[in-house]
Amino acid sequence: MAKQKRGRRSFAFDTPPRIAAWASVAGKKESEGPLQGYFDYTNTDTYFGEPSWEKAECRMQQLALETLLEKAGKTPKDVDMVFSGDLLNQCISSSFALRNTGLPALGLYGACSTMAESLLLASLTVGGGFADRVVAMTSSHFAASERQYRYPLGYGGQRTPTAQWTVTGSGAALVSISGQGPVITAATVGTIEDLGIADANNMGAAMAPAAFETIRAHLDDLKAAPEDFDLIVTGDLGKVGSEILLDQFQKSGVNLGGRHRDCGTMVFDLEGQDVHAGGSGCGCSAIVLCGYLLDGLVKKKYRRILFCGTGALLSPTSSQQGESIPGVCHAVSISAEREG
Amino acid sequence: MAKQKRGRRSFAFDTPPRIAAWASVAGKKESEGPLQGYFDYTNTDTYFGEPSWEKAECRMQQLALETLLEKAGKTPKDVDMVFSGDLLNQCISSSFALRNTGLPALGLYGACSTMAESLLLASLTVGGGFADRVVAMTSSHFAASERQYRYPLGYGGQRTPTAQWTVTGSGAALVSISGQGPVITAATVGTIEDLGIADANNMGAAMAPAAFETIRAHLDDLKAAPEDFDLIVTGDLGKVGSEILLDQFQKSGVNLGGRHRDCGTMVFDLEGQDVHAGGSGCGCSAIVLCGYLLDGLVKKKYRRILFCGTGALLSPTSSQQGESIPGVCHAVSISAEREG
Repeated sequence: MAKQKRGRRSFAFDTPPRIAAWASVAGKKESEGPLQGYFDYTNTDTYFGEPSWEKAECRMQQLALETLLEKAGKTPKDVDMVFSGDLLNQCISSSFALRNTGLPALGLYGACSTMAESLLLASLTVGGGFADRVVAMTSSHFAASERQYRYPLGYGGQRTPTAQWTVTGSGAALVSISGQGPVITAATVGTIEDLGIADANNMGAAMAPAAFETIRAHLDDLKAAPEDFDLIVTGDLGKVGSEILLDQFQKSGVNLGGRHRDCGTMVFDLEGQDVHAGGSGCGCSAIVLCGYLLDGLVKKKYRRILFCGTGALLSPTSSQQGESIPGVCHAVSISAEREG
Repeated sequence: MAKQKRGRRSFAFDTPPRIAAWASVAGKKESEGPLQGYFDYTNTDTYFGEPSWEKAECRMQQLALETLLEKAGKTPKDVDMVFSGDLLNQCISSSFALRNTGLPALGLYGACSTMAESLLLASLTVGGGFADRVVAMTSSHFAASERQYRYPLGYGGQRTPTAQWTVTGSGAALVSISGQGPVITAATVGTIEDLGIADANNMGAAMAPAAFETIRAHLDDLKAAPEDFDLIVTGDLGKVGSEILLDQFQKSGVNLGGRHRDCGTMVFDLEGQDVHAGGSGCGCSAIVLCGYLLDGLVKKKYRRILFCGTGALLSPTSSQQGESIPGVCHAVSISAEREG
């Protein structure tokens, strides 16, 4: 059996890589929410100085990358590879952000699970001895997402109570073979679960079964218990999806003991900011991780967290053709210090 | 420095993984072309029995995966992970093909470079000791692509001479820690190059600089020469892009010595099948690799090939907003036998 493999879909690193630096870029609404003060760069202009929202999202990734390298004291030449992806058709924010930078680039599509997926693959690349420093990065933009997935903003469509609000933000992390910073000890790759939810305004419910399946597999494969983590953080299940996840765990006899949090309910004030079921989008878990959570690990507020990015793998075309919504969740275990 | 790293963006495997099995699914036009007889499954129905072209593409991936496992004598439970992606918005062919299969899934977006990108990442996962058997898979569908990227087929739009024809097909490969089959010895991750080509009907020209850059880096990093390969195969530069690539090499003083071939010009009869500059799409290099090339390695027709997937990272939105077309190319070195 492969040597760093644990169970079928999980692995633990012989030499766990470090998250040597991280950076977050956030929009206006995000910088007015409960996590204000945790972001490296904020802008009240939804265009970030660009002529379109799509180009604004690309600009956010560029800003996240620039800030990351500055914080790490590195130049682009010090980076061996970048894993990135986003929600826009053909992942244009990610590709255009990296063009002509000379940065070796591997594109991902994991919908809103991209921060976890990119972190997992960056860890695997460094932990497998293939690279010294790899960037994991993603973004989303409320206005660009709305017009691509739902309605043009000017149409003024009504939002349902289960709808979530796409975060305008970008997060980037530098996974490194050496240096200081939180440690990635293990990870679990998600399976694609679809229990038949077809309401594109209730993506939390569509993603909850995938989150349950991945967290359960991680605990089983790594012989871990919920008590081993200070936090088990899902990406963007929001209020509705989080309730379903907790219900599934209760029914399965595993007690999360109040350790569960969700980036979608952390990033906004659900009552005060009129976001209905919470935040969503690749940027949601990205800015909560690269803003708030990694900071909490450094300050020893948290000793170990399980970061579980969740993604709804639908497209407007699949929904128009009557399909339900598959979900996926990838999990990465991050500790404040090297263990064992 | 990381131990399997060679140069900044290339790596060579300490224990090179095998391609233990492969499978290809092709449409009508492809099965009438020069590579007829090399595909495992062909169908003259462009719908593959499904109600839409998008669902047909998804069905092709399912067929490729089923055929792959059958040829390998494996079940889905024997597979640790799948890397896959496609051209449809939000990569729905890949996600829907894997839903509720229990297969751990990592989604990619590399446009038409996806076969090489998925093979590279599968090799890295197996070669790094994280998995025993990993599937690399992708697909494209002419009719689904046309209506998403260009015009509805019924519109009867005129094609320009530099335009390429999206291949209807799917390819899948099983990268394994053990067993028989061709060996993946090394790989190079691509950078995103954009020299300003903005004509979405001339994607070969847009991708050629990325192919040049990656092949050059592979040769430099691995201290290899063109003579070390029987073939240097690009993904889908087509006739126009291939000429530009050869021109770039000639100008740089490196003689490819007639070793270059392009999957886009191999898969169709350019004159007889009215495809203008050649084939394209994720399925193009996928079915040429998983149909013709791997067969050639097994039969010792080729001793070693450099498989270079090429991708044009545009979207209709980026083109409408006046952007040029970034290209990317990932390279994987495949040998008939274990070396050294």
